[in-house]
Amino acid sequence: MSIRKSLIKQAKLAKEATYKMGNISTEMKNEALYMVADGLIERKEDILKENEKDMINAKKDKMSEAFLDRLSLNDKRIKGMAEGLKKVAELNDPIGDIVEMKKNPIGLQIGKMRVPIGVIGIIYEARPNVTVQAASLCLKSGNTVILRGGSSAFNSNKFLTEIIEENLLKAGLPEGAVQLIKTTDREAVKELMSFNQYLDLLIPRGGAELINRVVNESKIPVIQTGVGNCHIFVDHSANLASAIEIIVNAKTSRPAVCNACESLLIDQSIAKNFIPRLTKKLSNYNVEVRGDQTAVKLDNKVKQADQSDWSTEYLDYIISLKVVKDIDQAINHINKYGTKHSEAIITESYTNSQKFLKKVDAAAVYVNASTRFTDGGQFGLGAEIGISTQKMHARGPMGLNELTTIKYVIYGQGQIRE
Amino acid sequence: MSIRKSLIKQAKLAKEATYKMGNISTEMKNEALYMVADGLIERKEDILKENEKDMINAKKDKMSEAFLDRLSLNDKRIKGMAEGLKKVAELNDPIGDIVEMKKNPIGLQIGKMRVPIGVIGIIYEARPNVTVQAASLCLKSGNTVILRGGSSAFNSNKFLTEIIEENLLKAGLPEGAVQLIKTTDREAVKELMSFNQYLDLLIPRGGAELINRVVNESKIPVIQTGVGNCHIFVDHSANLASAIEIIVNAKTSRPAVCNACESLLIDQSIAKNFIPRLTKKLSNYNVEVRGDQTAVKLDNKVKQADQSDWSTEYLDYIISLKVVKDIDQAINHINKYGTKHSEAIITESYTNSQKFLKKVDAAAVYVNASTRFTDGGQFGLGAEIGISTQKMHARGPMGLNELTTIKYVIYGQGQIRE
Repeated sequence: MSIRKSLIKQAKLAKEATYKMGNISTEMKNEALYMVADGLIERKEDILKENEKDMINAKKDKMSEAFLDRLSLNDKRIKGMAEGLKKVAELNDPIGDIVEMKKNPIGLQIGKMRVPIGVIGIIYEARPNVTVQAASLCLKSGNTVILRGGSSAFNSNKFLTEIIEENLLKAGLPEGAVQLIKTTDREAVKELMSFNQYLDLLIPRGGAELINRVVNESKIPVIQTGVGNCHIFVDHSANLASAIEIIVNAKTSRPAVCNACESLLIDQSIAKNFIPRLTKKLSNYNVEVRGDQTAVKLDNKVKQADQSDWSTEYLDYIISLKVVKDIDQAINHINKYGTKHSEAIITESYTNSQKFLKKVDAAAVYVNASTRFTDGGQFGLGAEIGISTQKMHARGPMGLNELTTIKYVIYGQGQIRE
Repeated sequence: MSIRKSLIKQAKLAKEATYKMGNISTEMKNEALYMVADGLIERKEDILKENEKDMINAKKDKMSEAFLDRLSLNDKRIKGMAEGLKKVAELNDPIGDIVEMKKNPIGLQIGKMRVPIGVIGIIYEARPNVTVQAASLCLKSGNTVILRGGSSAFNSNKFLTEIIEENLLKAGLPEGAVQLIKTTDREAVKELMSFNQYLDLLIPRGGAELINRVVNESKIPVIQTGVGNCHIFVDHSANLASAIEIIVNAKTSRPAVCNACESLLIDQSIAKNFIPRLTKKLSNYNVEVRGDQTAVKLDNKVKQADQSDWSTEYLDYIISLKVVKDIDQAINHINKYGTKHSEAIITESYTNSQKFLKKVDAAAVYVNASTRFTDGGQFGLGAEIGISTQKMHARGPMGLNELTTIKYVIYGQGQIRE
């Protein structure tokens, strides 16, 4: 069968399955999640064998240590996946909730019922645990899902999906609820992106290149996730000790994640005093600071930044630093160079805190806290499928509610319109 | 200047203006809306002159009577536009509302603030009053807008936009808040659809052909609106007198709109008795009924339908009719042929009412009421920019809230993440 034909078959099956999935009880969905969790533990050895195949290939391909780390599975990670499944089972099922219900003047009861989006496509890169996590969140929210994992993780993903599929069928869920694209051919992604008659949403999870490709080529609605060039602005009135603590946390607690801080903006009136204090502390963590000319002059620990530094998401122990005239320049800089992920101000000024919250255009805007909190767990969503950095449908961490849509339900008693 | 260059200039200006528009007070926005309303009345004669140019061209082009009607302006319609503007001014301004605000376990106050989407592009067809209505809704919700009206209405739209732009500037709103694309070249739409670095959302308003083109070609997120192949299913337990009244209302009260009923599904157990009663009533309104073989056999007023009738949005005094075995067949038929707009069941069965509400996949699902109620005004939104028939971001009538997005705002006291 050609790639296109085989994909159409999968997409049709997923679409058919949505009509059943949307009406499956919470109990059945949870039961299925627990069964998959048990299945992963039971077949741990086989999972590790499949993962080993991927690891051998990746090593042959001379992939980086970081890449190999993301790709590799072990006992602990498999246990982690199983626990993740149980956690999703424990989350409130949003499907069927009526968000609002109001009576209109002629007695129609008009409410908004939460319903699944339908068929969701997830395109992701190396990490095989995304397979299990994405499947569980889509399933719990009544959606069906077509997964396209990175080709390096193909053996792992294929086997994990088999365990999922097997257990979902055993639990009585429809065939096609969770499917993996069974080819590593890049043509498959191109085809998938054209299936707007079958798929309702595409979520690319990965680097900027993947995301841009999907945004530019997809005929299916896309939610962009992830890229975070996050700033912290230290206002003239900031508590400087707290500012340093927050910056160190935002940069060094986990530099490779999207909510880590990548760029600092320092009010000029405090620059001379603050920058050396800050760089001294950051040097304890081996953080390289790349600053503008003013910063370089004030502190010889600061290396000269170039224009590209303002737009770079380092995901590493590097941070850029710019001295700004005032809060307005800081806000303009963020709105120009930021990726609309997470932005923070450190200030004791009430007026400036409000101004920053109002004028900065990003998914999450903080006063006096680390950008590292932008996360479904921290925001009380229980889990997340990604952090949306675009404005349509969902913004910020996407939990189960963000994987739903609504339909209006209207109870009448024979009303007709004048 | 080339079309592309001139469009980029407009798009950049619109993007720049968003940073100001999002922070303009409700009072200023309302004042601007009132000033535009007064401007339209003052320059009525000039508007009619420009509209006359369009009418002359359209008549030369032998456009249909219906088309000329949609294109034409008169005293009453201009007054209507002015009143529409004042009505939008009176609506609650959603911008800055905090939708939820919760304290997390470590004391962060996390809320969702309603903010504008940004730059919205509206692509529409003949009716010049859409220019004023779309501009007013985008403006009140803090967005900036780029309008692309039908080429037949170019002179009318150009002059209306001039009045809008003039008065917005007078009211202190930023340049570029409302702009019209100043060419009728089709190339402009193509260019516009590629501007995902400037525009945040595209809303096509018009026929299926326009909407499909935009969905297929746009790199900007699109909300599909409008096409409505709406069904009414008459269940075996229906109150037949009420069913007839609702069907007549849904078909004949305004056949050319998207929430009019286009197709009937009749439970086989009542078909013999019900269909002749119904067609007799419908014949008073000159409604042509096109039915399946069973219906044709039961009633000689019913003409034979062909396969294409099940998917046709007639927008006319024609309705299709199919006799179904039961509610399950009805639901399957709707989910297969419907356009996910508005669907109704007429029933006295509690179980069937719940089943229909749950299983039918559409923006609005009714029990015992006319589909004609799917409308922003009727649903209490005050006004609408269109009816979304897709699932992302907004579904059903789109009012001011649906033209907004959220950003998370977080109040901290120095919190860092463990």
